[in-house]
Amino acid sequence: MIEETKQVIDSEITILQDGDVASPNGYTASGIHVGLRRAKKDFGWLYSSNPAQCAAVYTQNAFKAAPLQVTQASLNVSKQLSAVVINSAIANACTGERGLRDAIQTKKWISEKLQLPEHEIAVASTGLIGEFLPMDKIKYGVEHIDIEGATCSKDFNESILTTDKETKHIAVQVTIDGEVITVGGSSKGSGMINPNMATMLGFMTTDANVQAEDLEDILKPTVDDTFNMITVDGDTSTNDMVLLLANGMVGKQQLTKEHPEWHKFVEAVRYVCEHLAKSIAQDGEGATKLIKVEVEGAISKEKNNAIAKTIVGSSLVKTAIHGGDPNFGRFVTAIGYADNTISPNNVDVWLCDHLIVKQGMPVPFDALDLKANMEQDTIVIKAKVGNGLFKSTAFGCDLSYEYVRINALYST
Amino acid sequence: MIEETKQVIDSEITILQDGDVASPNGYTASGIHVGLRRAKKDFGWLYSSNPAQCAAVYTQNAFKAAPLQVTQASLNVSKQLSAVVINSAIANACTGERGLRDAIQTKKWISEKLQLPEHEIAVASTGLIGEFLPMDKIKYGVEHIDIEGATCSKDFNESILTTDKETKHIAVQVTIDGEVITVGGSSKGSGMINPNMATMLGFMTTDANVQAEDLEDILKPTVDDTFNMITVDGDTSTNDMVLLLANGMVGKQQLTKEHPEWHKFVEAVRYVCEHLAKSIAQDGEGATKLIKVEVEGAISKEKNNAIAKTIVGSSLVKTAIHGGDPNFGRFVTAIGYADNTISPNNVDVWLCDHLIVKQGMPVPFDALDLKANMEQDTIVIKAKVGNGLFKSTAFGCDLSYEYVRINALYST
Repeated sequence: MIEETKQVIDSEITILQDGDVASPNGYTASGIHVGLRRAKKDFGWLYSSNPAQCAAVYTQNAFKAAPLQVTQASLNVSKQLSAVVINSAIANACTGERGLRDAIQTKKWISEKLQLPEHEIAVASTGLIGEFLPMDKIKYGVEHIDIEGATCSKDFNESILTTDKETKHIAVQVTIDGEVITVGGSSKGSGMINPNMATMLGFMTTDANVQAEDLEDILKPTVDDTFNMITVDGDTSTNDMVLLLANGMVGKQQLTKEHPEWHKFVEAVRYVCEHLAKSIAQDGEGATKLIKVEVEGAISKEKNNAIAKTIVGSSLVKTAIHGGDPNFGRFVTAIGYADNTISPNNVDVWLCDHLIVKQGMPVPFDALDLKANMEQDTIVIKAKVGNGLFKSTAFGCDLSYEYVRINALYST
Repeated sequence: MIEETKQVIDSEITILQDGDVASPNGYTASGIHVGLRRAKKDFGWLYSSNPAQCAAVYTQNAFKAAPLQVTQASLNVSKQLSAVVINSAIANACTGERGLRDAIQTKKWISEKLQLPEHEIAVASTGLIGEFLPMDKIKYGVEHIDIEGATCSKDFNESILTTDKETKHIAVQVTIDGEVITVGGSSKGSGMINPNMATMLGFMTTDANVQAEDLEDILKPTVDDTFNMITVDGDTSTNDMVLLLANGMVGKQQLTKEHPEWHKFVEAVRYVCEHLAKSIAQDGEGATKLIKVEVEGAISKEKNNAIAKTIVGSSLVKTAIHGGDPNFGRFVTAIGYADNTISPNNVDVWLCDHLIVKQGMPVPFDALDLKANMEQDTIVIKAKVGNGLFKSTAFGCDLSYEYVRINALYST
């Protein structure tokens, strides 16, 4: 996992030690075991003591799981959420009308238990596709939601995992108008690690006083630059969702786009997104190395992003990194098919800070030194593909025997 | 390799036993060892005794290798070719001005040796990216081109390989206006099997009397439906090229699109393309199984093709097939992100002729029988995704430990 000691990043953002989705004021989160998984926690909840403004992004997959549809319906009413309830093990995707009814029923039970309007409740699921939720266990879980007693956000972070090896969480603080604002987040892993495991869930919270419309304005582009720039195997799941909640517990005045320090808030959200995204890539199925790809110079943001993501997603690049092979040909090939409008003569590539391609052609490098650098846990590939001003960063992981083993030797 | 006995396919197309690019009248092909590879043949030539009309398609990669640029320059003059000369082992890609000069020099030498105009000569290379051709060996090869003595097209088929396990070739015959027309082809493998190995070369010949413009009209859509519908690892190489030559040795009258039996010729070309494409997929790096994906029902040809190719290219589908796992969730997920405009309720999926998904939801199937079927060499996945009239077929292979081993354990 990424190091998380309390540290000041750039004199504006401070990272909280062991921070997560429950770090901002007014939120609690916890989780329990209800029997969906054998022994691990599998049912979690996040609660805000007053209704939080909310922005959301969902999977682009045509097979959008039932809980996403039900959450979307909630947010369509007032863009406010007080509770988010998540189960792991079963995705409630490809479950038709019955799946929808189950998700709606879950929302009703939560509404009764917590005395909340239904439209202030979001539900999320992750796990096997094509199986129905065992509603007795879900009901048991809802009955045991406890928002006032001893809650433990570490249990929440665990309850949303499927076969992730590590929990993924962070919280940061920025000071705006002399008030400390906290942004926190927890997420689950990207691998469709066991067959049909649904991919990526991200929950972010803040105590800043921000309206849903302003949250929406920053969430989509930030997700595009972070969560959408990671890839493990290129498969987009049925259950991907990212939520950003702002409950306004800090800040008497509303914080808006017009505020001179708005950029601090945006940076804090971006920092949290990037950390969670990077953690997901690092914990990808069978991963032994984190791959970071930085690209600049394409003629549009889209093309620049596409090049970065194509490099980090290429099976040939992923296996080369796995094998510690400084294989320049695979990088330029990926660049060339990601954007066939670039001019090869303008392409430079660095691997672990060694220049390996200059103006589209290989150049001599210190092979021994580079080989040694490629044994590090994080491999950085940089590419300059032209004179455009755009910059993109993508994260991924290597492709290992373990990936094939995990995904081939499972029996449905 | 696909079975190739002489057989009648549909009362119109006859397959020649051991046919290849030299089967049509007026063509010879052969190959020798010039020292680019350790011991295997590495230098081949295809010759037509009179200038053949020619259509070509090239890689879409921005890094287009030097020999492709030089061949394109030839065809821009008169769309006629008399000789195609190929070397393996070195791709002459990412070699800048010097690479271009080397390819032009090669063409000049061939022109002198064979007493042909330079624009009737095509050159092709496949192998390591970023290395210069050793021109002494190329010159030796050109000096030893023999178009009249004992030629052996089997040697040609071998000389164009890199680390393909098998040669790939076929020839078929159709009768048009009472005359037997032959269409032949030879190709090399799709795997960027060793690092930087350039991908796919396809050479097709016919003795039909067809103009280049008509050849172009059929080559592009046929390649789109065949060569462009296979994937091994999704990486598009710098050196991909397909040529179709027609030397008019058979047929006093020109065969044109207006001819009532034109469709027979089109079908013959398509049959050859599909066979070569399928052979490439089957011999993909580390492949143990051929995967055939048939999709119908999307709202456009492009979307239909994209769905088929996404399924066959998904790492999760490829590992599931490798492990013999009837994992319906991976198929629907791939369909759903290939085309997010489809309606899940309209999606049915069959695996080895077992219905596993009906109207977007899993259905019970005979697991034992299906598991047994999944041990066959060819796995067929069929999907109906709507009511559109389009049909697409894509070919690929499973993702094995061997793929990772081949691609990770290579040392540049």
